[in-house]
Amino acid sequence: MLQSWLPVPPDSDFSIYNLPFGIFSDERPARAGVAIGEWVVDLTAAYALNLFPHYPEAGGAFRKPVLNDLIGLGREFSEYVRKTIQDALFDHDSVLHQYAGHLLIRQKDVQMHMPLKVGNYTDFYSSEEHAFSVGQIFRPDNPLFPNWKQMPVAYHGRASSIVASGTPVYRPQGQVGQASGNPAFVATRALDYELELAFVIGKDSTFGRPVPVGEAEDYIFGMLLFNDWSARDIQRWEYQPLGPFTSKNFASGISPWIVTWEALHPFRVPAPAQLPRPLPYLSIEPRLNFDLSLSVGIKPENGSEYEVCQTNAQHLYWTAAQQIAHHTITGCNLQTGDLLATGTISGRGISQKGCLLEATLNGRQSVKLGDGVERRFLEDNDEVVMRGFGQKEKIRVGFGELRGKVLPAIQG
Amino acid sequence: MLQSWLPVPPDSDFSIYNLPFGIFSDERPARAGVAIGEWVVDLTAAYALNLFPHYPEAGGAFRKPVLNDLIGLGREFSEYVRKTIQDALFDHDSVLHQYAGHLLIRQKDVQMHMPLKVGNYTDFYSSEEHAFSVGQIFRPDNPLFPNWKQMPVAYHGRASSIVASGTPVYRPQGQVGQASGNPAFVATRALDYELELAFVIGKDSTFGRPVPVGEAEDYIFGMLLFNDWSARDIQRWEYQPLGPFTSKNFASGISPWIVTWEALHPFRVPAPAQLPRPLPYLSIEPRLNFDLSLSVGIKPENGSEYEVCQTNAQHLYWTAAQQIAHHTITGCNLQTGDLLATGTISGRGISQKGCLLEATLNGRQSVKLGDGVERRFLEDNDEVVMRGFGQKEKIRVGFGELRGKVLPAIQG
Repeated sequence: MLQSWLPVPPDSDFSIYNLPFGIFSDERPARAGVAIGEWVVDLTAAYALNLFPHYPEAGGAFRKPVLNDLIGLGREFSEYVRKTIQDALFDHDSVLHQYAGHLLIRQKDVQMHMPLKVGNYTDFYSSEEHAFSVGQIFRPDNPLFPNWKQMPVAYHGRASSIVASGTPVYRPQGQVGQASGNPAFVATRALDYELELAFVIGKDSTFGRPVPVGEAEDYIFGMLLFNDWSARDIQRWEYQPLGPFTSKNFASGISPWIVTWEALHPFRVPAPAQLPRPLPYLSIEPRLNFDLSLSVGIKPENGSEYEVCQTNAQHLYWTAAQQIAHHTITGCNLQTGDLLATGTISGRGISQKGCLLEATLNGRQSVKLGDGVERRFLEDNDEVVMRGFGQKEKIRVGFGELRGKVLPAIQG
Repeated sequence: MLQSWLPVPPDSDFSIYNLPFGIFSDERPARAGVAIGEWVVDLTAAYALNLFPHYPEAGGAFRKPVLNDLIGLGREFSEYVRKTIQDALFDHDSVLHQYAGHLLIRQKDVQMHMPLKVGNYTDFYSSEEHAFSVGQIFRPDNPLFPNWKQMPVAYHGRASSIVASGTPVYRPQGQVGQASGNPAFVATRALDYELELAFVIGKDSTFGRPVPVGEAEDYIFGMLLFNDWSARDIQRWEYQPLGPFTSKNFASGISPWIVTWEALHPFRVPAPAQLPRPLPYLSIEPRLNFDLSLSVGIKPENGSEYEVCQTNAQHLYWTAAQQIAHHTITGCNLQTGDLLATGTISGRGISQKGCLLEATLNGRQSVKLGDGVERRFLEDNDEVVMRGFGQKEKIRVGFGELRGKVLPAIQG
């Protein structure tokens, strides 16, 4: 194996095989960077030193405070940037090495920002374990609707309230049902996270034209961790017949680094078999998922973080390609910068549940955090930490952390 | 009454009391304009002639191909522009009159465009008549869920596929349920329109902070006609449990001119009484709607247009202020350029139904178009035309037309 001049710890999410894109700032304004180990490559500075001679027009895209324009230049461009940096990291005579003091900035010295202006955000419901367990809680007699195995069920979410990792979330207040029939206005007593992955759309599709399932992956730029904050008591009261609204639209968190589709390639694995077989517009062979380890930790105030979930993305019933084919089948157009989230990713075991609703059976039992601390739902000042990575032999590619803290409800 | 030097027919939607904003182009690129009678005032040209001396910084906003920046300058600014033009239309010595040949362009000589880059779009369900009739069709035993009279029920829609008036829509293809249990893939056999109004959000609210119902109207810039195209057979199969998705996201149409909140003021009327009384965050007195006449026409290919619906917006159960208060109650932030649509606006009578689903009882009876032509749902090459206006004594303020034609499904 070639040796880079820049040492990266073997357990780093940001190995030389990853090189994800993000938006960072230091004393200078927010701009594009690539993560490597504990460092950020400043792409504007690298561009100024002519590190990317094949794309002289790309300077403007690097200077923007979101990645949409950079992504809009196409996967060929982003691959060129990654490959150029990768080569330079192996090359002791590279400009990147010579000017490392100028081009590399420590991650601990920068602020990360929203990597995208999210145009539209769609949330799928693609984990069978999750759909079934949640369905059991909300509708014991009818957990999985007959459409669930025929299509990747989804709903449109709220893009304006998608926030960067580290953005705290106030405990939402809203309407909940009561046995009396009249609703109450409360600060939610059932605040939850949802562990998801989100695909970043990398190019526009055409209004009125479905994207064929065999071409769908061409529309994906990369992937993020996604936390779909949810207020379960509000959700239960409001969700019929049009789906969740105020119980979900108050905030969603995303991880700061977009891991590219190409960097995730080593972790592709066959998706679970589908019976009944879906309609032709959803049929493709091979159907591939990603073997990515995912986890959730809860850190109570003044306490240590405890891992409450460890699961894997490889068991998702519906794949990204199927989600895109379904999303566009009636003619809906996708746009660069859209997010398509998987829905909560859960496994079978109680320690593999991607949200507290499932792990606690809607608060009927508690999750132990250790030292006598337990949770049914999130408490004020809890911090939720999501992580995810793929590992294949010595190749590790990860998302870093997605963090978000619960603040007490706003008074008055 | 003062007399303007520019004659406007008494039945024009674009009277001197209206002066709505839109985006038009001729041989020069798309830019902002104001409609008056059969004319467009070219705001960039008027700005260049110093018609708006109090806002020297506004030139950039007028030149943009969408109105978001202009709207972002605030209602005080747009009112200044409207008032300035209104005064100039009464003043025979005004610059507008002197240079009328340069500043006024005939509407028939321009192309109208999407007036907005829509950030997020939300569809409410605020007409009791509509919610009840649709509920009866989809759930005869349970037409109105218990939450409906407690909150303005809504879901997030798809912003990317909102298109300008005149944009044709391909008949969508997708999944429908069948008695066998297995779905079929078909071109929809139940294509429908939905007659709605949409409020244009005029300023950003703060992430995490609900907008009090008493301040909610400050966030509205103006109003549009909105056609929420729907495929009913696809909707029925997919909508549980997360709401409509591919049955609605393929297209929505909007009228080209945004009628400002101030121009609609003469048509404010009390909204229907609410029992049970809503929670305090939704309570406000007086609760006001708009007395606006609304209609839908269908024009078959090579035929005349027939009016199939005549209704009024004044009976909506939930008002704009209540919709905004509810939308933000858990902390969701609104952004300039968002659209909040009312949901289908229906009255009690069969000729007052804002969609064919209701007017035909889901295709069980037909709507007569005349000359032996009838419809259960839309047929290929039908054009749908929506209109709306308020009239109070001699003051008429309207939206103009929202048109959209159905094209046959795309083959292959």
